[in-house]
Amino acid sequence: MSKKVAGPEIERLTQLLARVPGLGPRSARKATLALLKRRKELLEPLSAAMADAAARVIDCPTCGNLDTVSPCTLCQDPRRDQSLIVVVEEVGDMWALERAGAANALYHVLGGHLSPLDGVGPDRLNIGKLIERADSAQVKEVLLALNATVEGQSTAHYLSEQLKSTGVVVSRIAQGVPMGGELDYLDDGTLAAAIKSRRRV
Amino acid sequence: MSKKVAGPEIERLTQLLARVPGLGPRSARKATLALLKRRKELLEPLSAAMADAAARVIDCPTCGNLDTVSPCTLCQDPRRDQSLIVVVEEVGDMWALERAGAANALYHVLGGHLSPLDGVGPDRLNIGKLIERADSAQVKEVLLALNATVEGQSTAHYLSEQLKSTGVVVSRIAQGVPMGGELDYLDDGTLAAAIKSRRRV
Repeated sequence: MSKKVAGPEIERLTQLLARVPGLGPRSARKATLALLKRRKELLEPLSAAMADAAARVIDCPTCGNLDTVSPCTLCQDPRRDQSLIVVVEEVGDMWALERAGAANALYHVLGGHLSPLDGVGPDRLNIGKLIERADSAQVKEVLLALNATVEGQSTAHYLSEQLKSTGVVVSRIAQGVPMGGELDYLDDGTLAAAIKSRRRV
Repeated sequence: MSKKVAGPEIERLTQLLARVPGLGPRSARKATLALLKRRKELLEPLSAAMADAAARVIDCPTCGNLDTVSPCTLCQDPRRDQSLIVVVEEVGDMWALERAGAANALYHVLGGHLSPLDGVGPDRLNIGKLIERADSAQVKEVLLALNATVEGQSTAHYLSEQLKSTGVVVSRIAQGVPMGGELDYLDDGTLAAAIKSRRRV
């Protein structure tokens, strides 16, 4: 859309929408049109919800979760197992585990993984606070729920070294055949991990 | 993400984003996270751009374009051919033609196509205003640039009947092989249209 076609407000909205992950330049234009067609029903509520979130959402100073209260809802929940901290790379990973109801424990968001080539060293991740939390008397175990990627695994290795001094049990989530997975379609690494971590039935 | 995980503000933002075309429930969650991670750089400007668009964008009373001035920038442009009105189904079609620089004329947005099964009759489209515009002395030709679908073509047929009384020339955009199109991969209908509308070289 050239500047001539419509006002700069519409152009600016399209450009900003194109920066939202999941939307490219083409789908941003489609989204702009759809929003402008439904100004009362969609554009206005969405704009208000964004302003609300921008004004109220904060990073939890304890675990790194995104929430409107500090500490966050999860950190404040007394029904959670206070002796277990589940470490994840991103907030989205934490939400995935919560949706699955996989862990009723505390969390810690690193904010990424170690990646020396991209200049992400230990100081760029939320590691100091994790050591501090792991040092407290009530924490007995730190479960590293990092991605099963090279970066995730080397970050896990680094963390387990760092956590040795705290005396907590350090564990990792299991690797193996995913639910519903057919052996024939799985990669060699997954199959090897599944054999290596076999359990007696 | 269950309500427990984070505040209702985040949940509401995700739900509204999921209603934007191009984003589903899963990608809306990813978008929410990305926006919340970049609150200053992306969420706040986007929220402001949306509020601005919601407050200022209006439907052009003449052609149905979306713009912040009335009549719209295109309707006000004296360098455009005032004797030709290009009729399109949606504002996005008009923008596509403008991006292509395909027509330096006036436009008219119908707001959809006739679809009796969905209850969209002539009264639901912006047709009365089109007849009125075509009736003016300066308009010599109405070019129907509707989609090459069954609905688009039956709408074009209906419009050409309605426009007869105005005495203007009614034309349609050509159908045929698209630029770069390989005959082997084109559908039968396109090939038949391309043969039928052949031109002497």
